[in-house]
Amino acid sequence: MQVEEAIRMKRAVRVFQDKRLKEEHVRAILNAGRRAQSAKNQQPWQFLAIDDPKILADLSELGTYAGHLAGAALGVAILTPDPAQRWSIMFDAGQAAAYMQLAAWDLGIGSCPATIYQPEDARELLGFPEEWHIRVALSFGYPDDEEELTQAPASGGRKELDALTHWNRWGS
Amino acid sequence: MQVEEAIRMKRAVRVFQDKRLKEEHVRAILNAGRRAQSAKNQQPWQFLAIDDPKILADLSELGTYAGHLAGAALGVAILTPDPAQRWSIMFDAGQAAAYMQLAAWDLGIGSCPATIYQPEDARELLGFPEEWHIRVALSFGYPDDEEELTQAPASGGRKELDALTHWNRWGS
Repeated sequence: MQVEEAIRMKRAVRVFQDKRLKEEHVRAILNAGRRAQSAKNQQPWQFLAIDDPKILADLSELGTYAGHLAGAALGVAILTPDPAQRWSIMFDAGQAAAYMQLAAWDLGIGSCPATIYQPEDARELLGFPEEWHIRVALSFGYPDDEEELTQAPASGGRKELDALTHWNRWGS
Repeated sequence: MQVEEAIRMKRAVRVFQDKRLKEEHVRAILNAGRRAQSAKNQQPWQFLAIDDPKILADLSELGTYAGHLAGAALGVAILTPDPAQRWSIMFDAGQAAAYMQLAAWDLGIGSCPATIYQPEDARELLGFPEEWHIRVALSFGYPDDEEELTQAPASGGRKELDALTHWNRWGS
């Protein structure tokens, strides 16, 4: 798929087929995240790839809107240093997420981020050490409604360009 | 360009040709950022697109490694609500940056982020109000060294996948 089309068409997918992802596709998704740029090339992340349905179900209970993780074929928890250390940590994590989700979309795989509101419970569930932190996990899977892959973007889903762009100085 | 190729090949470009971008390409870049997903679809950003060389030169002095902005054909300052409000603000900004930079790469346009270390000076320069904040601006332009567009990724530039991936639980 072309970059322009992927960016224009990608939508959030929260309901997935009960179908495993090919291992090569899982690796392609993770590799895309690995390739993202980061401040000073620090690559401030570890990826915890989860395909165990029990762990996904438990993780889905640790966020108010994280239920879609329970039905995902793959969850990717993005672990970072403490986000309070510097703003660039979550900025970089966002870039890695965007790369993973676009790479997935290119393979016909939908995705959605979930905020983990109970990070210390997630730490216990996933066993990661004190120096790593979780704020977000991504769900991946083949869309239950395959039309989601080709539907035009919803109108009104994003602000108009003129409503958020200024030229050279604010207000112009 | 295919998504996979763009993600694999995109590299930071910091030295640009002295050549303006086509207006349709500027709009394509901004539109890509506009399309990025965000927590609760809040779209927590305004884009300040800068092609005035004097403003770019002044902005380039407000960060230690921001010199590349002075030679850019286009700078895009990403304005957000106060990043201290919630981690998702800069996570979302990172996704918008990734989309803009991939869309640019697809058009043969290089880019690089710059940290703005003196945000209050930037506020004065760019004239944006108190409720908006700047941490980062992106440089865009045609690479001075056009081979950068087709060079293979530098080996050792990113950690190996096995060094940052765990399966189902930390350490496995």
